[in-house]
Amino acid sequence: MFNFKAIVKILGFLLIVEGIFMLISMLVALLYHGSDVLPLLNSALITLGVGGLAVATMFKAEKRFSKNDGFIIVSLVWIVFSLFGSLPYLLSNSIPRLSDAFFETMSGFTTTGSSVLNDIEALPHGILFWRSLTQWLGGMGIIVLSLAILPVFGIGGMQLFAAEVPGPVPDKLNPRIQQTAKNLWAIYVLFTVVESLLLWAGGMSFFDAINHSFTTMATGGYSTKQASVAYWDSPFIQYVIIFFMVIAGTNFTLSYSALTGKFDKVYKNEEFKYYILFIVIFTAIIFSGLLLTTQLGYEQAFRDTLFQVVSIITTTGYATADYLTWTPFLMVLIFTLFFFGGSAGSTGGGIKIMRIVLLLKNSYYELRRLLHPNAIIPVRFNKRSVSEQIITNVLAFFMIYLMIFFVSTTLFTLIDPDLNSAMGAVATSLGNIGPGLGNYGPAENFSQVPAVGKWFLSFLMLLGRLELFTVLVLFSPAFWKK
Amino acid sequence: MFNFKAIVKILGFLLIVEGIFMLISMLVALLYHGSDVLPLLNSALITLGVGGLAVATMFKAEKRFSKNDGFIIVSLVWIVFSLFGSLPYLLSNSIPRLSDAFFETMSGFTTTGSSVLNDIEALPHGILFWRSLTQWLGGMGIIVLSLAILPVFGIGGMQLFAAEVPGPVPDKLNPRIQQTAKNLWAIYVLFTVVESLLLWAGGMSFFDAINHSFTTMATGGYSTKQASVAYWDSPFIQYVIIFFMVIAGTNFTLSYSALTGKFDKVYKNEEFKYYILFIVIFTAIIFSGLLLTTQLGYEQAFRDTLFQVVSIITTTGYATADYLTWTPFLMVLIFTLFFFGGSAGSTGGGIKIMRIVLLLKNSYYELRRLLHPNAIIPVRFNKRSVSEQIITNVLAFFMIYLMIFFVSTTLFTLIDPDLNSAMGAVATSLGNIGPGLGNYGPAENFSQVPAVGKWFLSFLMLLGRLELFTVLVLFSPAFWKK
Ligand SMILES: [K+]
Ligand SMILES: [K+]
Repeated sequence: MFNFKAIVKILGFLLIVEGIFMLISMLVALLYHGSDVLPLLNSALITLGVGGLAVATMFKAEKRFSKNDGFIIVSLVWIVFSLFGSLPYLLSNSIPRLSDAFFETMSGFTTTGSSVLNDIEALPHGILFWRSLTQWLGGMGIIVLSLAILPVFGIGGMQLFAAEVPGPVPDKLNPRIQQTAKNLWAIYVLFTVVESLLLWAGGMSFFDAINHSFTTMATGGYSTKQASVAYWDSPFIQYVIIFFMVIAGTNFTLSYSALTGKFDKVYKNEEFKYYILFIVIFTAIIFSGLLLTTQLGYEQAFRDTLFQVVSIITTTGYATADYLTWTPFLMVLIFTLFFFGGSAGSTGGGIKIMRIVLLLKNSYYELRRLLHPNAIIPVRFNKRSVSEQIITNVLAFFMIYLMIFFVSTTLFTLIDPDLNSAMGAVATSLGNIGPGLGNYGPAENFSQVPAVGKWFLSFLMLLGRLELFTVLVLFSPAFWKK
Repeated sequence: MFNFKAIVKILGFLLIVEGIFMLISMLVALLYHGSDVLPLLNSALITLGVGGLAVATMFKAEKRFSKNDGFIIVSLVWIVFSLFGSLPYLLSNSIPRLSDAFFETMSGFTTTGSSVLNDIEALPHGILFWRSLTQWLGGMGIIVLSLAILPVFGIGGMQLFAAEVPGPVPDKLNPRIQQTAKNLWAIYVLFTVVESLLLWAGGMSFFDAINHSFTTMATGGYSTKQASVAYWDSPFIQYVIIFFMVIAGTNFTLSYSALTGKFDKVYKNEEFKYYILFIVIFTAIIFSGLLLTTQLGYEQAFRDTLFQVVSIITTTGYATADYLTWTPFLMVLIFTLFFFGGSAGSTGGGIKIMRIVLLLKNSYYELRRLLHPNAIIPVRFNKRSVSEQIITNVLAFFMIYLMIFFVSTTLFTLIDPDLNSAMGAVATSLGNIGPGLGNYGPAENFSQVPAVGKWFLSFLMLLGRLELFTVLVLFSPAFWKK
C-alpha cells in the first residue's frame, strides 16, 4: 500500500522550505517597514511549525516509497503549498477571503499568473515579494519535476531527451536527480540575477526588477503593477523581458548545454527550432495585421506583437498591449497560441512545443502511411525515430487536454454565460498562462468570478501544471486498488 | 502515373447517373406544372451530354486503376457533382449566383444541409425535389464509400467491422463491393419508403413526406419549409423523424443485421451502445436544464431536447427549437455534440462515435499504462483488441480535425469577426451538420456570408464528408511524386 508516513515526512520537509521563504519575504517587509511584517512572521511560524511537527513525528518513516506514493506527493505538494501559501494574504488582510487567497496562491505556484487583485500597487512590499516568490518557487519546482522526477514515471515524453531512460526505481536515482536539480537550479538563479540587473539598469526600481525576474523566469507573469509590463514604456525593458521569456520557455537542459559551450546541441535541437519558428510565424502575421488595422508605428507594432506572442506562447502572460482590442482575426491567432505552450523542460505550461510538433509530424506521416500502407514510417524527432508508445502517449495527452478544455468550458458557462469568457478562463488556467478572453482579458482580472469558479479554475491550473496524467491518475480506480 | 482516362470515364459514367436523377426531378416539376421543367431538362441534357461525351471518348480506357486514382476520383466526384448539380438552381434562377448555387449543392451532396435560401417555400417543386435528392444521393454515396470503398484504402477505421480486411488491390474486389453496395442501398431505399409512408400518414403532404425522408436518411437536414420540421407541430411526425434520424446515424451494416434477424449483432455492438448512451446522457441533462430554465411542459421539453440532441449528434441538422435561445450552458452542450457525429458506416458526418469511444478508451488506458508501464494493455473494442496502427490513425484523425477547426475558425474571423459565429460555421461545415452558432443558428442561414466564405465552407464540407485524409492526401507532395 502507500507509505503515508514517508509522504507526510516529505511534505513536512517541503513546508519547512516554504516557511523559510516566508521568512525571507518578512525580511523584505522589514526593509520597507511594512505593515506586513507580523502577518508574514506568523505565516512562517505556522508553516514551519506544521512542517517541523510532520517531520518530527514521521522521522523514522521508511525511506523506501513507490511510484504511487510519488504521484500522491506531487499533487499534494502543490495543494498544501497553496493552502499554507495563502496565509500571508489572509493574515495581512491583503486578500481577506480564502477562495481568493487560495486562487492567487495556486495561480502563483502553478506559474499561471491569473489574479484577483484590483489594486496591486496597494499591497505592501513583503506581500508582493511573497507573491512573486510563489511563482519563482513554482518554476523551480516544475523544472525539477519535469526534468528529473516525471521521466522516472514515464510522463512528459522526456524520454526523448534523456540519454538513457531512468528505470522505474525512484529511490536508486536520488544522487542523479540531486545533481541534475542542482545544475538546473544554478542556471535558473543565474538567469534571474542577470535579468534583475538588466531591468534595474533599464530604469526599474531594484524591487520591481527582482520581482519581474522571478516571474519572468517562472513564466509566471505576476507583475508588481496593475498595468503589468505596460507600466514601463521602455523598449529596452520590454526587449529584455522578451529575451528572458524566450529563455524561460526553452528547455533548461538546453540552456545548460549552451552555457557550457555545447552550442551544437542547441541548433541541432528540433523542439527549439520549431519554438523559434512558431514565434517568427505568428509575429510576422500579427505584425502585418497590426500595421494594416492600426495606426501604430513600425517599432511599436513590432514590439507589441513580439511581446504578446512571446508572452502567450511561453505562457508567461505579461501584457504590454490588450490583444482583445485587436481585430478579431489577430485576437483569435493569439488565442490559438494558448494551445501551444513552452518547450518541454522549461517553466512554460500548455501542451508544449514538443507535443505540438510530434502531433503535426504524426498527422503528416499518417498521410504518407496511407499512400504506402506496407512501409514502416516512424515519426522522427531529433534524428531519432520515436516509439509508437510515445506517440500514443502524446496523442492521448492532447486528446485529454482538449476534452478537459471542452467539458470545463461547458461547465464554466454555468458560472459565466459568455462563451468566449468561459473558453478563455478555462484555456488560460489549464495552460498556466494568466490572461484570458472576454471578461478576463489582459486589462481585467478574475475578482468577479464567484468562489466556486475560483476553486474550479485553481483545480484546472493544478491539472495543467502537473501534465494532466499526474493528477488524473489519482482519479483512476486502478490507482487505489490493492 | 495516374490513369486519367479511366478517371474521366468513371466521372462521365457518374455524371450520366446524376443527369438521370435530374430527369426524375423534371418529372416532378412536370407533375406540378412548375416553371422549372425547362431548367431541369436543360440541366439534365448538359449533364448527360458531358457525361456521355466523357464515357464515349474514354471508352477504351484501361480498366486497371491504382489507389491514387481512387483518391482523385473520390474527391472529384463530389466537386464535379456539385458543379453540374448547381445547374438547376442557376438555370431556373432559384439561386442566381454561382457561389450560392455551388454552396447549396455541395451542402446537399455532402449531406450538410446549410442553406443560402431565405424563402424555401418560394421554390418550385422540381427544384425542391432536386435539392432533397442531392442529399439522398450524397447519403447513398457515402454509405458505399465508407463501407465498401474507403476500407480498401485503409481509411475510416472500418477494419474493426470487416470480418477480413480487404487487401490493397481495389479492382479485384469489384464483385464484393457491388454486392455490399446493393444490400446497403436496398435497406436505404426501404427505410426511405417506410418513413415517407409514416410521415404521410402523420399529416404531411406526400411531397413533403418524400422530401423529408430523403433528407432524414441522408442525415442531410434540408427541409421544404423555412421553419424546418418546426413547421409541423405534430408529436407523431417529430417522433417518427427522431426514430429515423437515429437509424440514419447507425451503421447501415448493423441495420442490415437487424433486418435479417441477427439481433445479437446489434446489442453486442459497442459503437451502437455508446451512441445510444450519449443520446441518453445529453438528453437527460438538457431535458433537466430546460425544465429548470423554461416554462415548457414535460412532453414538449422532452421532445424538444430529444429532437435537437438526435438531430445534432446524427449531424442531420433539422430544427424544431432554436438552441441559441437556450441558456448558454445548454447551448454549449449542444455545441459539444457538434464534435461527436454519427456512427461509422452511417450517413452521419462528424468525428464519429467509434472514434470518440476509441479516443476515450485510449485516454483511460493511457492512465492504466502509466500505473503498469510494463504491462501490455491494448484498447479493446467489440471484444477484440485494437491494433496500435488503428489507434494512431484515429488519434491523427482527431488531431487533424481539430487543427482544421482551429485554423479555419481563425481564418473565418476575417469573414465574420464574431468568434462564436465563426466557430459555429466552421464546425457545422466540417461536421456536415447544417446549423451553427451566432449569426448562423437554426433560425438563420448562410446567405449573408460573402462569396469567398461560401467557397471556403464548401471546401470544409467536402473535407469533413470525405473523412479528411481522402482529400488531404491530395495536398501531400508524396502523392504526386513519381
Ligand atoms: K503564466
Ligand atoms: K446535415
